[in-house]
Amino acid sequence: MSAVADVVLSPAQERERFRGGLVRSTAGLAPGHAQANLIIVPRELAFDVLLFAQRNPKPCPVLGVLDAGETTGPLLSGGDIRTDVPRYVVYEDGREVARPTDITAFWREDLVTFMLGCSFTFEGALQASGIPVAHVDQGVNVPMYRTSRRCEPAGSLSGPLVVSMRPIPADRVADAVRITSRYPAVHGAPVHVGDPAALGIGDLGAPDFGDPVRIAPGEIPVFWACGVTPQAAVMESRPPFAICHAPGHMLVTDARDADYQVP
Amino acid sequence: MSAVADVVLSPAQERERFRGGLVRSTAGLAPGHAQANLIIVPRELAFDVLLFAQRNPKPCPVLGVLDAGETTGPLLSGGDIRTDVPRYVVYEDGREVARPTDITAFWREDLVTFMLGCSFTFEGALQASGIPVAHVDQGVNVPMYRTSRRCEPAGSLSGPLVVSMRPIPADRVADAVRITSRYPAVHGAPVHVGDPAALGIGDLGAPDFGDPVRIAPGEIPVFWACGVTPQAAVMESRPPFAICHAPGHMLVTDARDADYQVP
Repeated sequence: MSAVADVVLSPAQERERFRGGLVRSTAGLAPGHAQANLIIVPRELAFDVLLFAQRNPKPCPVLGVLDAGETTGPLLSGGDIRTDVPRYVVYEDGREVARPTDITAFWREDLVTFMLGCSFTFEGALQASGIPVAHVDQGVNVPMYRTSRRCEPAGSLSGPLVVSMRPIPADRVADAVRITSRYPAVHGAPVHVGDPAALGIGDLGAPDFGDPVRIAPGEIPVFWACGVTPQAAVMESRPPFAICHAPGHMLVTDARDADYQVP
Repeated sequence: MSAVADVVLSPAQERERFRGGLVRSTAGLAPGHAQANLIIVPRELAFDVLLFAQRNPKPCPVLGVLDAGETTGPLLSGGDIRTDVPRYVVYEDGREVARPTDITAFWREDLVTFMLGCSFTFEGALQASGIPVAHVDQGVNVPMYRTSRRCEPAGSLSGPLVVSMRPIPADRVADAVRITSRYPAVHGAPVHVGDPAALGIGDLGAPDFGDPVRIAPGEIPVFWACGVTPQAAVMESRPPFAICHAPGHMLVTDARDADYQVP
């Protein structure tokens, strides 16, 4: 995986590779460019999704929306939302029914696509400050956990807050907070530092999504709101139909990380 | 009017006065508390409104949403959205059909209420820094103008950016920018400083909404994005039904201005 990751491609080139069938976590790809979580729903559920995002902006920062039937837009110029993500998850009544690498066969003209900010955006800034990003260094997907915190519901949608976890050396936790708080459009500052039990997380070694990471002595688990949150709401609220990205397998967008940074 | 404005009431008390029939501009009322623009639409138009807001966050910062049929919520605790605004405008097919002080007779169970941030929120901060707010000092409604700038459309909704204007002494313009940029949830920094013609505004003395203000020698017209923007989109896009606040006649909310301030 490291050999692949060492080749720096543009977002359009990364999307082309995924369109061609490559499947991998997108962490670290197209550095400097924002990645996005996906949630695609029929038009009649679209208001509930957008309202859920508005009421839960930390886990669900909206970067862009493609209107019903639209398959491309400025965040994926020249791309196609049905083919350009490495892997998707298709839900019917909240149950996973397929995990395809292309959703052309599932596409309908009434589908609305939401692209939500992803914490991969601030990982480059962490690394640039010498803060290690464990899952990148260990070549695995970021670990994500359902928590006991509830999101603000919206219409038919409700569910738990999902968080991603990065172990941070204790003497760099304050720096990690400071750096990520400059990115409010991509989850921003951590929602929780240390003490997984207080979030209802029993075992850090058994994430609900993604892969476990090794936590070195002296490192503290730090938790950020995660864009898989609406996907957990889909699993719990059981709308008739929805398509999401497979966790960690994001849309690589043309937007620059710096576009989402505040002073 | 100044005698009335001198009495400092709580947001709930102000709403009670409006519920009782008082009609006036809300500028300067319940200092320290946020005021909100209203747009109320049937459920089938709600996604377009929320998407319009998401795509045009400077004029349309969403402070809260009441689901279909809901008439109260945390921003107006104990209040009633149908009676607590001093004056409303009812639109059918984009045409104004009534300007009531109570919309109980127009209420339907499928109506969704959007409350959007209002620049009245940062006027207290301007005044606290010794920057005069002309329309408050002159006891009139803030002047608002349709501009030649187009908003990003969303579904069936499109329209021009509407701005509010405050004349600012030339040596305080930089301060006014700095202060208001700390309030991104209530329109934030100005969209334009000076030169109304570049915004397509022919005559500052003839605002499209609100009242004209006197501009003293040495003052520069400064323009902020305005929450009347979705109302202008309703007038242009002609949805079957919508209710808005009468410009300048806002919902006085329980939220504190400070809640919307960033460092």
